Amino acid sequence: MSTSPKPLHLNAFLMSTGHHEASWRLPESDPYSTTSIAHYAKLAQTAERGRLDSIFFADSPSLWGTIGRRPSGSLEPTVVLAAIAALTTRIGLIATASTTYNEPYNLARRFASIDHISGGRVGWNIVTTATLDAARNFNRDELPSHAARYARAEEFLQVAKKLWDSWDDKAVLADKEAGLWGDDRLLYPAAHAGEHFQVAGALNVPRTPQGHPLLVQAGSSEDGRAFAANHAEAIFTAWQTIEEAQAFYADVKRRAKDAGRDPDGVLVLPGIVPVLGSTEAEARLLEEELDRLIVPEYALGNLAKQLKLDPSELDLDKELPAVLPTEDEIEGAKSRFTLIVDLARRERLTVRQLIGRLGGGRGHRTFTGTPEQVADAILDWADNGAADGFNIMPAVLPSGLEAFVDQVVPILQAKGRFRTEYEATTLRGHYGLARPENPRRAEAVASAVKGVLAHSR
Amino acid sequence: MSTSPKPLHLNAFLMSTGHHEASWRLPESDPYSTTSIAHYAKLAQTAERGRLDSIFFADSPSLWGTIGRRPSGSLEPTVVLAAIAALTTRIGLIATASTTYNEPYNLARRFASIDHISGGRVGWNIVTTATLDAARNFNRDELPSHAARYARAEEFLQVAKKLWDSWDDKAVLADKEAGLWGDDRLLYPAAHAGEHFQVAGALNVPRTPQGHPLLVQAGSSEDGRAFAANHAEAIFTAWQTIEEAQAFYADVKRRAKDAGRDPDGVLVLPGIVPVLGSTEAEARLLEEELDRLIVPEYALGNLAKQLKLDPSELDLDKELPAVLPTEDEIEGAKSRFTLIVDLARRERLTVRQLIGRLGGGRGHRTFTGTPEQVADAILDWADNGAADGFNIMPAVLPSGLEAFVDQVVPILQAKGRFRTEYEATTLRGHYGLARPENPRRAEAVASAVKGVLAHSR
Ligand SMILES: Cc1cc2nc3c(=O)[nH]c(=O)nc-3n(C[C@H](O)[C@H](O)[C@H](O)COP(=O)(O)O)c2cc1C
Ligand SMILES: Cc1cc2nc3c(=O)[nH]c(=O)nc-3n(C[C@H](O)[C@H](O)[C@H](O)COP(=O)(O)O)c2cc1C
Repeated sequence: MSTSPKPLHLNAFLMSTGHHEASWRLPESDPYSTTSIAHYAKLAQTAERGRLDSIFFADSPSLWGTIGRRPSGSLEPTVVLAAIAALTTRIGLIATASTTYNEPYNLARRFASIDHISGGRVGWNIVTTATLDAARNFNRDELPSHAARYARAEEFLQVAKKLWDSWDDKAVLADKEAGLWGDDRLLYPAAHAGEHFQVAGALNVPRTPQGHPLLVQAGSSEDGRAFAANHAEAIFTAWQTIEEAQAFYADVKRRAKDAGRDPDGVLVLPGIVPVLGSTEAEARLLEEELDRLIVPEYALGNLAKQLKLDPSELDLDKELPAVLPTEDEIEGAKSRFTLIVDLARRERLTVRQLIGRLGGGRGHRTFTGTPEQVADAILDWADNGAADGFNIMPAVLPSGLEAFVDQVVPILQAKGRFRTEYEATTLRGHYGLARPENPRRAEAVASAVKGVLAHSR
Repeated sequence: MSTSPKPLHLNAFLMSTGHHEASWRLPESDPYSTTSIAHYAKLAQTAERGRLDSIFFADSPSLWGTIGRRPSGSLEPTVVLAAIAALTTRIGLIATASTTYNEPYNLARRFASIDHISGGRVGWNIVTTATLDAARNFNRDELPSHAARYARAEEFLQVAKKLWDSWDDKAVLADKEAGLWGDDRLLYPAAHAGEHFQVAGALNVPRTPQGHPLLVQAGSSEDGRAFAANHAEAIFTAWQTIEEAQAFYADVKRRAKDAGRDPDGVLVLPGIVPVLGSTEAEARLLEEELDRLIVPEYALGNLAKQLKLDPSELDLDKELPAVLPTEDEIEGAKSRFTLIVDLARRERLTVRQLIGRLGGGRGHRTFTGTPEQVADAILDWADNGAADGFNIMPAVLPSGLEAFVDQVVPILQAKGRFRTEYEATTLRGHYGLARPENPRRAEAVASAVKGVLAHSR
């Protein structure tokens, strides 16, 4: 270790029985956990016991493919977070929500409400939602274009920020004597009129403990990175190799700087799927068991969809077709498309092998080994400009998270690389980020001063 | 008591420091309770201790008038319910949400999710949202017309029901051996294409403990009653006199019957604002104290808005102007408008007196007295065809709910008129309503049988 390294941040990405698509078939797994709040609350408490920064739920407002393959359907994550907030005290709570299929007033309010409920622990993973299935649940026949989705997302964030800043931190007077609860002059209505949104009002929720929820982003295309540079405070991302991750890390830090922001205020958290065993052989055994339980026919249909191919164009025992669409032709998830194609080409994988590699983390890096090896893998990327922390995606839940918390975290703590107690009470605090000032207050003060000056002339 | 009377249903309508607009100024009140989940959780636990059927939150996606007058802004109620679900075990949980400013896929999903989280305790108070302020937060310059709002609400409910029924109760197989989690043939996609909505998908949440959330309705205009007759299982309503309440009760039961439904499956719950004291004099003292604390200037602006007048047209010490708009001209809350005008005319109230009368419950009946008197008032309406139960709206919170639970409920229990223990685990169970069958299953079975018959010919 050189000079004191930057603190490491760890997020637990929770998903029913785990990230491996066959995890639900293990004897230990509860296949009904998709709808069990007890399951998710216990996972959150485990993560909190490990002093992790946060837990996280992915989301899309649609049913994803066939329900034959793996546990399907998922509770809407903002209400899940609210329930978990009541059952935990410190851990950060991050939910995914789509800017394409929500209204800014409703969504900004829901996150503000959870920030109050949790005492400042909420984060929003901002996504534009890449599937046609979702579009078809919201009055559309076609997926809005990638560019149109990001344009709407940009304006959505502008509106949301105005709404979160629409109450001065001092707007509530609570003056019982005078009978004056709040000061209307300390409300700053959004008064937004743009291309996508027209939103008059102040939010109907006072400014929250964190000011704004922690803003997280998870798209890695050109547009996604540009958006992240403007708004993201943490970035979830998927990379198979340290070289790719380093390039991405350098790129988004530079973009943040170019956007006039402090690069340390934009944390990069690649995903890692740890498959843990007390010996390497034991870990391999678990991995093989999981891969053996994959039903490749299901996965093939899904892979074809991601690659914009017909399933008949894929042969389980051959490599991908020589001619594939380019990223430009993908209107869905661009960066994930490229990751998958690069992985298959680089390692000359058959479709069956590719499905195995994607079965663990859908494109995220799977790492199989002992707790020491996992800790080393984490520190290797963190110390070499590839990550500020990790999005931990246990292959099997709850056991994989318990193993991580009980076996990997103590190693990181013993090395002085991870907190042993929470030092902050808010999610922003855990991530080392400040509570945003309210720019509207500064404007209001400036215009009041101008008024006084004009008067005194 | 004649033959065993119908069971009584009691819902606690929760609102910051209480329903009386000046309640927040009492020494006991926490004026910051609008954003305090601890406050609401404690109220829910008190209601649960009293074995009440449910708690309820009103809502509108806008800031209501000035923030000077009373605690303003409110946490979004679906996330509040999710948090409270985690901290209670039996009480029903009802949130208001607007059909005008939500998308059916998102809202149906959120209620389905809370139904899972709470083990079958959620209800939805369906409203169309009557204020221009709300419209202006959702890309509009004008309030959509009353008729247009109810037309959208009607289709919204059709879609929501299709989504709640889009998974067969047996769709999840969880067959680990075969590697088959769910049966795609037991999904019934909504496939809805109507005037307002086009929604393809199955919901991404399995069918819930209650099948559908309890459906509650709270509009009493012509359109509101027609809607209630089609969909409502409980109706919140505001009446000042038993005669009005009886007429309404008879009317909606008849309408439900005409719509082919069992009138006992539509419970009518008028609001009552109990102001309790251990003697009548003590109760009156509390009422006078509260009314003295009203700042009438605030209330006047709000009253003018409800009556579609300019504030300058109202004089605190005179009666309402002779010429007023008619209910037809009101595009906002029609039935509340008529209630207020009728009350003022009938009792020849000055504007100041009217404001006093509305200060307690915004049009709901205020009843000031001892626990015995409140219990008698409740039974009087319940036994005379005016109510199946009550929406309890304590003037002051938490003390008013504690007084109701500790002093009024035991009287009703001693008379054998209210449960002493929960007999059911779901909200539908508390209200004596069945879990809806899935009509899509019957259709699917019928068409499968037809297929087999066709084959065997
Ligand atoms: C860790 C991680 C989690 C993600 N979670 C979601 C999600 O929950 N919902 C979603 O629509 N997209 C999710 N994505 C995908 C991206 O947010 C994005 O929608 C997709 O990659 C398209 O963006 P791009 O074209 O900029 O890459 C996730 C991506 C990553 C790396
Ligand atoms: C107890 C009660 C609670 C209500 N809560 C709400 C509410 O939370 N939000 C809302 O928009 N309207 C609420 N209303 C008003 C009605 O739902 C309805 O929106 C309004 O009266 C207009 O309907 P109408 O014109 O059919 O009367 C409530 C009414 C009652 C009686």
